[in-house]
Amino acid sequence: MAGTTNQLVAWVHGLDAAGYDPAEYDQVVSSGEQVTIGLLAIALQKLGVPARSFLGWQAGVRTDAAHGKARIVAIDPGPVMSCLEEGKVAVVAGFQGIGPDGRVTTLGRGGSDTSAVALAAALGADRCDIYTDVDGVYTTDPRIVAKARKLERITYEEMLEMASVGAKVLETRSVALAMQHRVRVQVLSSFEDKPGTLVVDEDEIVESQVVSGIAYSRNEARITVQQVRDRPGVAAAIFGPLAEANINVDMIVQSVSRDGQFANITFTVAKADLARAQAVLERAKERIGYERLVTDSNVVKVSVIGVGMRSHAGIAHRMFQTLADKGINIQAISTSEIKISVLIADEYTELALRALHSAYGLDAP
Amino acid sequence: MAGTTNQLVAWVHGLDAAGYDPAEYDQVVSSGEQVTIGLLAIALQKLGVPARSFLGWQAGVRTDAAHGKARIVAIDPGPVMSCLEEGKVAVVAGFQGIGPDGRVTTLGRGGSDTSAVALAAALGADRCDIYTDVDGVYTTDPRIVAKARKLERITYEEMLEMASVGAKVLETRSVALAMQHRVRVQVLSSFEDKPGTLVVDEDEIVESQVVSGIAYSRNEARITVQQVRDRPGVAAAIFGPLAEANINVDMIVQSVSRDGQFANITFTVAKADLARAQAVLERAKERIGYERLVTDSNVVKVSVIGVGMRSHAGIAHRMFQTLADKGINIQAISTSEIKISVLIADEYTELALRALHSAYGLDAP
Repeated sequence: MAGTTNQLVAWVHGLDAAGYDPAEYDQVVSSGEQVTIGLLAIALQKLGVPARSFLGWQAGVRTDAAHGKARIVAIDPGPVMSCLEEGKVAVVAGFQGIGPDGRVTTLGRGGSDTSAVALAAALGADRCDIYTDVDGVYTTDPRIVAKARKLERITYEEMLEMASVGAKVLETRSVALAMQHRVRVQVLSSFEDKPGTLVVDEDEIVESQVVSGIAYSRNEARITVQQVRDRPGVAAAIFGPLAEANINVDMIVQSVSRDGQFANITFTVAKADLARAQAVLERAKERIGYERLVTDSNVVKVSVIGVGMRSHAGIAHRMFQTLADKGINIQAISTSEIKISVLIADEYTELALRALHSAYGLDAP
Repeated sequence: MAGTTNQLVAWVHGLDAAGYDPAEYDQVVSSGEQVTIGLLAIALQKLGVPARSFLGWQAGVRTDAAHGKARIVAIDPGPVMSCLEEGKVAVVAGFQGIGPDGRVTTLGRGGSDTSAVALAAALGADRCDIYTDVDGVYTTDPRIVAKARKLERITYEEMLEMASVGAKVLETRSVALAMQHRVRVQVLSSFEDKPGTLVVDEDEIVESQVVSGIAYSRNEARITVQQVRDRPGVAAAIFGPLAEANINVDMIVQSVSRDGQFANITFTVAKADLARAQAVLERAKERIGYERLVTDSNVVKVSVIGVGMRSHAGIAHRMFQTLADKGINIQAISTSEIKISVLIADEYTELALRALHSAYGLDAP
């Protein structure tokens, strides 16, 4: 049924590209999943499998009123539970629910995975299986690193970090929800009948790797504010206007000139925000007091991720050494408890991924 | 949006042509109107007209559980009334409602008109306007009789009789419902901005024509059972087996032979039932005791309709005389309180309609 929802969205945009009522948008767009669940129930019945479909409101999926990007507030497990108790497969429309005023809502990006996890939590299910177009979570992108391995298990925290740096097997929202409710999630292929990757709580992983995976994101752009007079309040002068413009800043590095009077301040923003960020900083040039802006879109953020990092030293050092050995310059660094990210020139992406994958002992035998 | 619902039906039939679950069929097919109401609400808003869409269940349309051909049980006018009180146009999905178990139902044939009339009744509306592809109800088919006139008003009873003999401007179900709840219905064109025909209670028509319209139906076939021995119980022997086979019989004429021993019994059935009716009668030949069956599909039923008939004599006589003057043989006759129908050879359809239209003074000046 690919394309159906796109067609519905196109019809709405065709009538009113900008100012359309989001509640009516939801009324129209939610019908795509409605068609799919009805047809799937019929297909299952035809195979002799008792089944019945549920729209979001029929499955008790209550959301807030934020049409087009609603959040699930609560799920009444009653209707689906009754169906299961009758021995039927419940086919529930994802991506939709019912708002406080009785209108149909859609959940926005990642809404289908989120619906599944939320329903599994409400039902107290043993596991939530998400069938998708990949067969699991890999140690890194197998299109780049031939020796990438499929992980049997990964923790919620690692999965979140993977998603946050571009490995979009599951939407961040659904993983966060699974973590919150301790719902075990399996990612597996719609096309092959074999186990996928289980996303679980840390204590379910008996012997964890120090590093579980290496992810990358080409979604970043670098900005360097050169020759800023190094004085108290200069960071606020730069990042205040960006925050006001609703632009998220990620990695930040400050380097001070030899005489200690000037600094270069480097940071990253989403590529989509680059032009806007530049404009904001140029408007604030006098207030900040810098010489010039240098920007670079040809960068990639490479991240090494693993809950084992918490208890192991030397992980960062190995990363820096490995990249140095390949002659790859690190432009910025950021870390979290279970992740180290570096910004490098994007022409080194494949080289860096393969080298790090080997260095952390992740290569398939 | 023409074709959307057909596409949905085709998808269901593609999965399971015969045995599909009618509740799931409704889940799928009801989404067509869902798309339409959302888009219409957006289009109205774009024009500056406040509007909001309602699905059947959101508009409080409760039906029985007969999926695919549900009947409206009750409508809670609250939600739509609130919308109207806020000064908004309520765009309600026709053809659908919610069954006693909370599942989506569709109303089947004529469901959209019926939804509109039922909602108008529940709201206590002054009038229910039905926009369609014709601009009103005519004294007869204007494609055949150039002098046909659009009626300003017509009674429910006349409209029902018109519909029952083929003039399908409104579905019978919706007219019957309008009559029951005394909802004034206006039929008018979607394409032209001018008044249509008002379907109203008899006491709203100050000076009624004796005859309001002349309708015809090519949907009938004639069967003559020849040389039946004329004895008590012979009608039961013929019509009993047909009733058991669920075949409706309409006009019935019995003519007795000169010696009073044999009769010919002529009647009509729907063309679609003709072959089945023949088979039933042939199986019962011995029990009935007749010489042979003669059938004819080349017949038309022409009906003269008007509430004024109740108080005027001579209407039938004028019909028979007019047809006789044109040399048209009447094969069967049936009457109701406000209708006289005759069966004639269908090659005379146009001639008969034009002659009767003039004879009853209906021609446009």
